[in-house]
Amino acid sequence: MPNIKLVLLRHGQSKWNKKNLFTGWRDIELSKEGKIEAIQAGKILKNFNFKFDYAYTSVLKRAIHTLWFVLKELDQLWIPVKKTWRLNERHYGSLQGMNKKQILKKFGKIQVQKWRRSFTTKPPLLSIEDPKWERFDSKYAKLDDHQLPLSESLSKTLERVVYIWKNNILHKIMNGERIIIVAHGNSLRAFIKYIENISDKDIINLNLPTGRPIICEFNNKLKFQKRYYINDI
Amino acid sequence: MPNIKLVLLRHGQSKWNKKNLFTGWRDIELSKEGKIEAIQAGKILKNFNFKFDYAYTSVLKRAIHTLWFVLKELDQLWIPVKKTWRLNERHYGSLQGMNKKQILKKFGKIQVQKWRRSFTTKPPLLSIEDPKWERFDSKYAKLDDHQLPLSESLSKTLERVVYIWKNNILHKIMNGERIIIVAHGNSLRAFIKYIENISDKDIINLNLPTGRPIICEFNNKLKFQKRYYINDI
Repeated sequence: MPNIKLVLLRHGQSKWNKKNLFTGWRDIELSKEGKIEAIQAGKILKNFNFKFDYAYTSVLKRAIHTLWFVLKELDQLWIPVKKTWRLNERHYGSLQGMNKKQILKKFGKIQVQKWRRSFTTKPPLLSIEDPKWERFDSKYAKLDDHQLPLSESLSKTLERVVYIWKNNILHKIMNGERIIIVAHGNSLRAFIKYIENISDKDIINLNLPTGRPIICEFNNKLKFQKRYYINDI
Repeated sequence: MPNIKLVLLRHGQSKWNKKNLFTGWRDIELSKEGKIEAIQAGKILKNFNFKFDYAYTSVLKRAIHTLWFVLKELDQLWIPVKKTWRLNERHYGSLQGMNKKQILKKFGKIQVQKWRRSFTTKPPLLSIEDPKWERFDSKYAKLDDHQLPLSESLSKTLERVVYIWKNNILHKIMNGERIIIVAHGNSLRAFIKYIENISDKDIINLNLPTGRPIICEFNNKLKFQKRYYINDI
């Protein structure tokens, strides 16, 4: 029996990736280059004859749009799509909207590296009175306060990603459905850490490029086998 | 308590609307004008401050794309969308892909009028060996044979539209969710016939323009009150 293939895709470049700002849960559109990357990802998947039965994405438009471009290339607009905040990018707290270079200047390399790469450190929290807190965004109206972060460590991001994996995605894979997950640099890093059992230390070195389809293969007992970029096949 | 507003929208013009071909379940993209109509529909809804909690559409790309354009204008890409074959256009049997003028010449006005406007007449059936039958299209792979039409009367279309209404949409409305349904000329005609209790004879005169948002108002006991185009408000 052939291995099960799960496709992961980080969204194309966003306007804030381009401007070098911390983005997190801020809902920023793809840049022109990001749209081209998304279309290209769709073309690659098409060339390799990928078809999907079900798609997952976050509630952030850079990921949703990337998925749209992919499904359009595959002529599979009609498949069901689940959009969930649990696949959102890691919440970057009060760093969201700040320039990465300026933050580096202000806080120094060691602190910034810790915020960005440590598994358990949270960036500085948003204030609950900050009008930019997602509590004031209607797309999160159904979330309980304890679900809505003011900032997140990668370990917190991992918890919510694993929740949707265990409670939803895994069942579909077991039913033989072919799945694509279009999400974000850190929600996908967290997911890969979990399924490959990567140590807190080693996950620091994993960086995912935008718009490049990643294949995760599992055996029929759903044990992880290997991960690669599709154009490495 | 204010009336409940349900928004209906027929997709923008498709490439086959433009060419005057019978379309039915054939999966034809929006024309350039159709895209503009869809964006315009989104802008109108935005101007009148419409927001939605949930969207329904068919599995046909002219409807799905229309919904995309609307949600983009509303900055509500993140809302859940249910795509169902039950909201597809009426199945036009072996007339699908044929030119309406040529069919008129061949079969005469009375016969064509009957196929197009009668409530119970089916257009000529597709052959079960016809490679264009949707049985051979992966998007309908999960449907049973008895669900997959070879042709449909408007009354058959009405049955499946009412099914999704009663089993799904109605519950959401009762939960206070604000709904938009983006579908097709005949699936929406069937729906309107049902909720307004229009006679088989009178439904002949109802024609819905592409890309123009329709409001159906219900009282809080979900009794139909009135229907109008949004720019008539």
